[in-house]
Amino acid sequence: MSKVGIIAYGTTPFTREDHKIESILHKSTNDLFQNNPDMDKKEIDAVLVSTNNNSKYLSPVLSEMNGIQPKIAHSIESLCNSGTNSIVSAFSYISSGLADMVLVSGAERYDSPGQILEWDNSRGEFKHPIFWASLFSKSYKQKYKISNEQLSIVSVKNHKQAKENPNALSKKTYTSQDVLNSKKLTEDLRLLDCSRPCTGSASILLASEKVAKKNTDTPIWITGIGQKTTSAGFTKNMSLSSMESTKIAGESALKMSNRNISDVDVAEIHDAFSVCEPMALESLGFTNPGEGMDMINNLHETNNFKINPRGGLIGAGHPLGATGISQTIEIVQQLQNNAQKRQTDNAEIGLIHNMSAASTSSTVLVLEK
Amino acid sequence: MSKVGIIAYGTTPFTREDHKIESILHKSTNDLFQNNPDMDKKEIDAVLVSTNNNSKYLSPVLSEMNGIQPKIAHSIESLCNSGTNSIVSAFSYISSGLADMVLVSGAERYDSPGQILEWDNSRGEFKHPIFWASLFSKSYKQKYKISNEQLSIVSVKNHKQAKENPNALSKKTYTSQDVLNSKKLTEDLRLLDCSRPCTGSASILLASEKVAKKNTDTPIWITGIGQKTTSAGFTKNMSLSSMESTKIAGESALKMSNRNISDVDVAEIHDAFSVCEPMALESLGFTNPGEGMDMINNLHETNNFKINPRGGLIGAGHPLGATGISQTIEIVQQLQNNAQKRQTDNAEIGLIHNMSAASTSSTVLVLEK
Repeated sequence: MSKVGIIAYGTTPFTREDHKIESILHKSTNDLFQNNPDMDKKEIDAVLVSTNNNSKYLSPVLSEMNGIQPKIAHSIESLCNSGTNSIVSAFSYISSGLADMVLVSGAERYDSPGQILEWDNSRGEFKHPIFWASLFSKSYKQKYKISNEQLSIVSVKNHKQAKENPNALSKKTYTSQDVLNSKKLTEDLRLLDCSRPCTGSASILLASEKVAKKNTDTPIWITGIGQKTTSAGFTKNMSLSSMESTKIAGESALKMSNRNISDVDVAEIHDAFSVCEPMALESLGFTNPGEGMDMINNLHETNNFKINPRGGLIGAGHPLGATGISQTIEIVQQLQNNAQKRQTDNAEIGLIHNMSAASTSSTVLVLEK
Repeated sequence: MSKVGIIAYGTTPFTREDHKIESILHKSTNDLFQNNPDMDKKEIDAVLVSTNNNSKYLSPVLSEMNGIQPKIAHSIESLCNSGTNSIVSAFSYISSGLADMVLVSGAERYDSPGQILEWDNSRGEFKHPIFWASLFSKSYKQKYKISNEQLSIVSVKNHKQAKENPNALSKKTYTSQDVLNSKKLTEDLRLLDCSRPCTGSASILLASEKVAKKNTDTPIWITGIGQKTTSAGFTKNMSLSSMESTKIAGESALKMSNRNISDVDVAEIHDAFSVCEPMALESLGFTNPGEGMDMINNLHETNNFKINPRGGLIGAGHPLGATGISQTIEIVQQLQNNAQKRQTDNAEIGLIHNMSAASTSSTVLVLEK
């Protein structure tokens, strides 16, 4: 089984602008090829598009726009973790020998149809994600006696970190009081506790070991993959204060990479809402149940960018199909010691946590130099 | 690299009925599990949904309906060859070692949004497939001096063969005159030259060699895979009377399986429109350029079901995301000597040809006992 490495990346700024999905996709692939002018597009065996957009045949459209004639060309959708699902699919195409080089490109518009959980219609208002997030917040705060003020630090920290990310949607920093005084959406959720859907795209190029080493001196290897889907509806979750699919995916990914969670130097965590960050950190084993906010507080106070260096979904914005790919690019930059003011010290091993719909589905990736 | 086998299948009748996509998907998986009561759903590592439907998160929804908690769960879209793209993806998950058993389920509604080629909007009326099919027909007939009457035999043959397929949309047989007298859609296309979009679903279960042999005595192995996307818009095709992507995909699949086209005993060919069948047979190398209709005529006159035994898309109907999977099930039944009145003699090696949008993208699979 060939090793699989990430050898190039490109991105767009994350905005609330109104562009066609084809143009958004094209923009991040353009960025990729402009930054890597020596890559030979003829070597690209597969083009995978990650999106919730309703447009069809986007992979052949993107391929044609880029002058690529791939063997394998299709779109992949799994709501908010479409991006990492596409990366895992690319991994499998390369690892199985069906492809040597795969372009994965994710994009979304600010008005993505993936924001509304139509299949949860039967549960009345629950079809909008803020309703599960609200239940998660209430449950987590009650169980671990966490105040709104304590929880607000997630948003404060991630907006602060996003300020060092030139592509982030958010350009502002906020105090804890700003978060607590922001628009009340439900009893347990304020506007600044939420990531915002936005327009954006991110692309990466993956390759087999041989092709990766031919094309770059600094490939970043995918050494661990873990995935789990427990259900489609969040009301089937075993717990509203921990993430079962994240726990299982994390354990699988670490096992595959022969690593422990304490080996991880830098991580991207799927903070769709504030409460998701401490819950995910606990479910991944970074810290004990109920102690996620202690870890986050400590990182915030010491200005340590270890968790969500690019600002997380709350700071960077959440273009659904692009998010997992954008998270992966951040870890690649960190491991290549190329993350500028966001750089964490001695980043050798990185982790990506990407999930969908109240953590009913999770992907965890381990990346290494 | 583990061999990959098909170990079970299920399907629905193809109809023009109005059902929700979730129900359609569920129905073919129900058929699969009812026909294979000993299959252990807990062993299913991945659930891939093939569709052009706009509903999101369908793999977790289908998994939950079936009581499956997979690792890998996502949808795949590539218009009319979504089905075989999903099968190839399943192959790669198994072959790479990320999965041992994968459920692939394709479904579509009669009103699928995949029927309109929105990205060809700039070409005026060309966005409906009948316009490229019309140009193909004109070009093919002119180049090889084929009359409308000669071409009508494709529809006559495939409706005749569909009569032996209990799940086919068409329940009627037609004469050449019926085809020539059917509603005129364009100068070069009659209604009975066209496959009809419909409502239907087809599911297959794939497994690694070890797991396949544990679960069935008659696995059917995928021995050859070939894929190619040349463009998104058909006006970029090199030729309007042959299929370049089909030629490349066919050569790749035969090379991988170490077979020649003359070894193939039975084949499913993507006859979205009458002219596609002779064009594809020629591009795959079953016969010389311009001689596809001679081959088809000969098969028709001798009542030989070798090509499109289930009636092709014209006879069976075309539920986009399900089509490639339904074609694959037909070949599995043929190789298992289980195709009843459609059975071809001594079927040892089968081929599936599935394509999208004027053959801008093609998949070819080789299956063996």
